[in-house]
Amino acid sequence: MDLLFKNVTAITMMPEAPVLYNAQVGVKDGKIALITGASALAPAARRVIDGTNKVLIPGLYNCHTHAAMTLFRGFANDLALEDWLFNHIFPAERKLTPEIVYTGTQIAIAEMVASGTVAFSDMYFFMDEVARAADEAGVLANVSNAVIGMDRDTYDFHEDRVYAQSLNVLKSYHVNTGGRIRAEASIHGVYTSFAPAWKQVTDFAGENSLRLHIHLSETKTEQDNCVAAYGKTPARVFEEHGVFDLPVTAAHCVWATEEDMDILARHGVTAVHNPVSNLKLASGVAPVARMLAKGVNVAIGTDGMSSNNSHDLFEEIKIASILQKYAANDPTAAPALETLRMATVNGAKAQGRGDESGVLAEGYYADLVLMDFDSPRLTPCFDPVLGLAYSATGRDVAMTLCRGKILYENGEYKTIDVEKALFDARRYQKIITH
Amino acid sequence: MDLLFKNVTAITMMPEAPVLYNAQVGVKDGKIALITGASALAPAARRVIDGTNKVLIPGLYNCHTHAAMTLFRGFANDLALEDWLFNHIFPAERKLTPEIVYTGTQIAIAEMVASGTVAFSDMYFFMDEVARAADEAGVLANVSNAVIGMDRDTYDFHEDRVYAQSLNVLKSYHVNTGGRIRAEASIHGVYTSFAPAWKQVTDFAGENSLRLHIHLSETKTEQDNCVAAYGKTPARVFEEHGVFDLPVTAAHCVWATEEDMDILARHGVTAVHNPVSNLKLASGVAPVARMLAKGVNVAIGTDGMSSNNSHDLFEEIKIASILQKYAANDPTAAPALETLRMATVNGAKAQGRGDESGVLAEGYYADLVLMDFDSPRLTPCFDPVLGLAYSATGRDVAMTLCRGKILYENGEYKTIDVEKALFDARRYQKIITH
Repeated sequence: MDLLFKNVTAITMMPEAPVLYNAQVGVKDGKIALITGASALAPAARRVIDGTNKVLIPGLYNCHTHAAMTLFRGFANDLALEDWLFNHIFPAERKLTPEIVYTGTQIAIAEMVASGTVAFSDMYFFMDEVARAADEAGVLANVSNAVIGMDRDTYDFHEDRVYAQSLNVLKSYHVNTGGRIRAEASIHGVYTSFAPAWKQVTDFAGENSLRLHIHLSETKTEQDNCVAAYGKTPARVFEEHGVFDLPVTAAHCVWATEEDMDILARHGVTAVHNPVSNLKLASGVAPVARMLAKGVNVAIGTDGMSSNNSHDLFEEIKIASILQKYAANDPTAAPALETLRMATVNGAKAQGRGDESGVLAEGYYADLVLMDFDSPRLTPCFDPVLGLAYSATGRDVAMTLCRGKILYENGEYKTIDVEKALFDARRYQKIITH
Repeated sequence: MDLLFKNVTAITMMPEAPVLYNAQVGVKDGKIALITGASALAPAARRVIDGTNKVLIPGLYNCHTHAAMTLFRGFANDLALEDWLFNHIFPAERKLTPEIVYTGTQIAIAEMVASGTVAFSDMYFFMDEVARAADEAGVLANVSNAVIGMDRDTYDFHEDRVYAQSLNVLKSYHVNTGGRIRAEASIHGVYTSFAPAWKQVTDFAGENSLRLHIHLSETKTEQDNCVAAYGKTPARVFEEHGVFDLPVTAAHCVWATEEDMDILARHGVTAVHNPVSNLKLASGVAPVARMLAKGVNVAIGTDGMSSNNSHDLFEEIKIASILQKYAANDPTAAPALETLRMATVNGAKAQGRGDESGVLAEGYYADLVLMDFDSPRLTPCFDPVLGLAYSATGRDVAMTLCRGKILYENGEYKTIDVEKALFDARRYQKIITH
């Protein structure tokens, strides 16, 4: 073995035995080569880590991000949506360059690996720079740049810079990273483009076997305007235009109707729940429990940092759970293990990685996070799953591995020059807001 | 000076200048002896701390806790309220001893000081043990043991063990700690006792100049049952029985009516908002914005660890803010500075410490928390107040001081033997649930 965790509490997320106590988990050639709950004979390993009072979990999936927006963290918050977007965010985004997006993404990834996230699904400008930052950092990333085409009749995807960036990611990363970095196609939303754009993007995605990342039913205004314009909901509109014939990740789904949820379930669309962003922007509470009951694959995301402002998925996990309890008026709703599943198993599925990541099982990639439970904030520990969902935060992460490679350990970043990234971020901060 | 923070961003919470950049803050004899925003000549100091990329804030106030319930962290969660309370929590609480409550409180205080909290208002059994743990740890605490008197006609406060404990705290701590540890009187709630008990407890509080800590309008069931039994709301009932003639801290107030809020405002009652607990137990969302608008002093609390399960007040601050935005359907509601005020200024007021703590001002006690903003999760920092409310967590605390004494610094506890407390907690964990 390259690495062996001994006497660790392992949250496998496997249905038959989601928690193994005193487990041994071995890593070899980037994959989980051994996982046993019994005190079997320990194999030889180049490095052995004592797992006493530690909990090993599958690395978390953040399935809806605009990572480079870390550079807008704490910029123009607590404002009305229109004021915020048109007077602050859009003007600032016009100043973005490839270099700025690269640094913003680096900061985001540093936050993520330090808080237990190994994978993110990004939608932002200069997706080839996002891919570069993610590749260098060693994480998993599905990257996209959303098509916005308000020129209904003349929009030409091949003239959109998104097209060239997508080809660049396909060419430079898909194969070279062993599928670790993947391009996705993206339609920003039903309210920012029209049928001709949707057809071109879905055709492109189909031809290149890409997944599709969209925003769906985030606000009541979006939902109402769509019904006014098309006589039907965004989910219905996209279904009828063949968008859901592709594998789709749909962010938000706050205002999804019962029929919308049936559509999502029928087409295997992943709904990404972003509870903090939805509360902070006063968008609403997504019907997560209903979607799960209908068989929709629900994953979790943080959304961008101007509407959150943290990439710590443990925060989203806790809030997702307690918010559903409140919304359902039922403290048994959204139990801890189910919410953890959204951030692991369901996330991996949303990235097309369900058969290789998201659980602790032999043969799966060693996408692992070791949590330190030996602290006042996690003691006592009656149930490690409850501890993870309700008490732990990203700051309790001791070690993060992706495909067997250690990306972060006890405060040290192994693949990112954080000092330089912080320096650059502070420099760019002045540029984008002046 | 005993201690000088140089070039620090100081969140003073003073109305005229809530944020000072490049400030110098000097501590002498337990108090803030100097605070200046300009680059005045730095005085001599025994220790100087460079505040570059650091933010100094008033220590946080957690105004509703059952601290020793840390020992039930992750025990029997995700259950229906009745099942949870009667089949799990109550049987476990019957096994509590003074020693167990002492250790549980120690663990809670360790969590608190490590996450920036310097003061808590506790309501639990063996309040003299809570006082002892708080005194030794060096924090501020208002401690109480709630009177529960279901024997309507025969209840005798002087025969309640709460009486003896209260006298013990009064005698041993009030003067000896310079008011750092204070006894409070407590009525558990309108549904767990009757008028004769209320009169005896309020008389006792009046005679000894004590504040009163109660639960109020936490659940719809409580509110409805009270109206059914008395023909009026819990706030009306307590007002008519003279309870609000004392200075009162009322936890929850989730179901407070417009008239109830007027009553709270009129009597200067502090309403303590516990957003995580209220969501997790599906109690509801307190009308915080309405209460503030009516002039109610609203503070923040975590409630007990079986319904939270974290003492990190930064989490409550963030959730309090984004939850009000959602509830008000207005992203400008509950702006960051207002929510921070709830956890500082308003909390100090709720403990009767408003003229000596809760802000950074000369002559006030040096109840201070130094936050480390030099990390990916807090960079860039356009606005430190937004950073504190939406991005920071307790894990970003570099140093916590209470009355000028350092209680915690960079992972080290200066006043608590945490190793022993964790060892004891794991030992007691087995006792209370077997």
